[in-house]
Amino acid sequence: MHKGRLEAFSDGVIAILITIMVLELKVPHEGHGFEAIKPLLPVFASYVLSFIYVGIYWNNHHHLLQATQKVSGAILWSNLHLLFWLSLIPFTTGWMAEGHFQSEAVALYGFVLLMCGVAYFILEQFLIRAHGTSSSLAKALGSDFKGKISVLLYALAIALAFVNIWLAVAIYVGVAAIWFVPDQRIEGKITH
Amino acid sequence: MHKGRLEAFSDGVIAILITIMVLELKVPHEGHGFEAIKPLLPVFASYVLSFIYVGIYWNNHHHLLQATQKVSGAILWSNLHLLFWLSLIPFTTGWMAEGHFQSEAVALYGFVLLMCGVAYFILEQFLIRAHGTSSSLAKALGSDFKGKISVLLYALAIALAFVNIWLAVAIYVGVAAIWFVPDQRIEGKITH
Amino acid sequence: MHKGRLEAFSDGVIAILITIMVLELKVPHEGHGFEAIKPLLPVFASYVLSFIYVGIYWNNHHHLLQATQKVSGAILWSNLHLLFWLSLIPFTTGWMAEGHFQSEAVALYGFVLLMCGVAYFILEQFLIRAHGTSSSLAKALGSDFKGKISVLLYALAIALAFVNIWLAVAIYVGVAAIWFVPDQRIEGKITH
Amino acid sequence: MHKGRLEAFSDGVIAILITIMVLELKVPHEGHGFEAIKPLLPVFASYVLSFIYVGIYWNNHHHLLQATQKVSGAILWSNLHLLFWLSLIPFTTGWMAEGHFQSEAVALYGFVLLMCGVAYFILEQFLIRAHGTSSSLAKALGSDFKGKISVLLYALAIALAFVNIWLAVAIYVGVAAIWFVPDQRIEGKITH
Repeated sequence: MHKGRLEAFSDGVIAILITIMVLELKVPHEGHGFEAIKPLLPVFASYVLSFIYVGIYWNNHHHLLQATQKVSGAILWSNLHLLFWLSLIPFTTGWMAEGHFQSEAVALYGFVLLMCGVAYFILEQFLIRAHGTSSSLAKALGSDFKGKISVLLYALAIALAFVNIWLAVAIYVGVAAIWFVPDQRIEGKITH
Repeated sequence: MHKGRLEAFSDGVIAILITIMVLELKVPHEGHGFEAIKPLLPVFASYVLSFIYVGIYWNNHHHLLQATQKVSGAILWSNLHLLFWLSLIPFTTGWMAEGHFQSEAVALYGFVLLMCGVAYFILEQFLIRAHGTSSSLAKALGSDFKGKISVLLYALAIALAFVNIWLAVAIYVGVAAIWFVPDQRIEGKITH
Repeated sequence: MHKGRLEAFSDGVIAILITIMVLELKVPHEGHGFEAIKPLLPVFASYVLSFIYVGIYWNNHHHLLQATQKVSGAILWSNLHLLFWLSLIPFTTGWMAEGHFQSEAVALYGFVLLMCGVAYFILEQFLIRAHGTSSSLAKALGSDFKGKISVLLYALAIALAFVNIWLAVAIYVGVAAIWFVPDQRIEGKITH
Repeated sequence: MHKGRLEAFSDGVIAILITIMVLELKVPHEGHGFEAIKPLLPVFASYVLSFIYVGIYWNNHHHLLQATQKVSGAILWSNLHLLFWLSLIPFTTGWMAEGHFQSEAVALYGFVLLMCGVAYFILEQFLIRAHGTSSSLAKALGSDFKGKISVLLYALAIALAFVNIWLAVAIYVGVAAIWFVPDQRIEGKITH
């Protein structure tokens, strides 16, 4: 089975997701001047954060499939599972921003990120299973420390959202920062 | 004629369909906390079901075209015909969920699934005609028992929607379950 | 210059156009049963017609670029020019259907189809110029009788829309019918 | 690392951007005849301008990546950075047109164009760094006079928007005109 269409389909879905988020930036029909778009600032800030998250997933997905040789039914479905959770990011981004960063919305934003992290981890496991634990892919992925710590941090942020939402938001920004660097493990060990 | 663009165009349309369904999950502007998003639960559940259905079609379409060697005008049009019925899934999903699962909406959901099944069957027939009944594609597809039984089950569900909508919904979930496994016929006989 | 990205970009735009038209089929929030979706019937009928038109353009574009060897700046821009007019089809489709088929809306629908036809003709001319009038592409395209007659028929339909809109609509359906068959000229002479 | 997915993903995002802009052309539900769509004329005119701008970016991006041999993490991110600013064009187009061309909206339209120009310049720098200053890519790009003058002209237009918005709009039209010609530097020196 060929990985080309898996990449093309994932690219399509991720490209649409990253773009439809901007539709939440609704053109104001009232007010004048910069005052009219001031209420959009939290929406814009959330858009930037989610754009970076979806960008990180695209980047890592790009690296992960680069190292992939074979595709099975289980890999197709675990990839669709990842796309499913990613597809919820525009909704949680919108609710967080337009719901005035209430605790529940901030927690749900983290929950969807957590599920994206879990789905990415599952996809990695099926890829390792298909390629063998002694494959260069498996070696390059190693213990995926960054992936595991992110999921723990999202769980912490979900709890903290009910204490102080800014602590949760700070964790979301922080995790984005540690992932911003593309997956050096694979880039370093396989592609070069 | 080259099948690359047929795959790319189908991937594009399916990627958009699977993603715009999520736009029916409208960000609530009233209410507070999880109470505010509770009315979205049926929309979310329907989204999950339709996501799986569109995912199944993408998966099976992927396998079907993998085994395809030639593309004719009739194949291009029967593929567009399949995409047409698939493109109605976001509407029927939205009406079923937001119309409080009334019988007519549940039946229409099934009717569009039935037409997708019929369109897929027609596409298979044109592919078999182009490749010959002794081709590996034709042998791999065989009698397409799963495809035929699904269409019968959709017809049954449409009728049952006017008796008890949950019987119809149970059939939709059940058919999704039997298709969840990618098309082993082709995966087993051709690709390996 | 490579034609791959030109095809991929055109596929992307056409896939989005053909799919966002369905967004005009808005989920009804009032009424019950099939009565609730009855007002959507003209929207649905217009969607079917426009889906077929965009499908025809994708099909013919597919055949045209199949026969293309080189891409120049002028070809890139005349392709974008075609995509521009195609991108207006969802709007004219929506206005025709939701504006109760008033003469002006029916005429505008035809005007955009006419401009798509003109844009396709211009693209053909730049392709012929790049490949030479003795190229197999130029020979296959010939005098493009079907393209020229379509533009004349659209012009006639625009005028007739102010007399009787159904005459205009009949012409739109008729032209779709004569184009439904993919471009046999190229399929026959070049690809085989 | 392979540039194929970078091109495919960029094509996807740009195809969606250029197409969702047309969604701001909302089907009128009141009024009759051409009077009903007359208020859409400024929206249409802004759509044409932004369509040309996004088309220019796609064209130049196409040429730029044609000359690219290697892709690094920094290139992936500077490409996403460019896509981020491009993704804001539908919003600024919508606000400019529907906000009756008020100074702030015209200035913001220019600011986003300016940031697109800056992002394109940054992408060029990372590409030159990856390929070496003696590479044919670096030589072809040269001093990028057109890129630098555009950014200066956008800055001028932003200031002029608060004096007379038509001066600013004239500059936007003028810059589009000087970019309309695809990047001859690369087309001339590398591809042929």
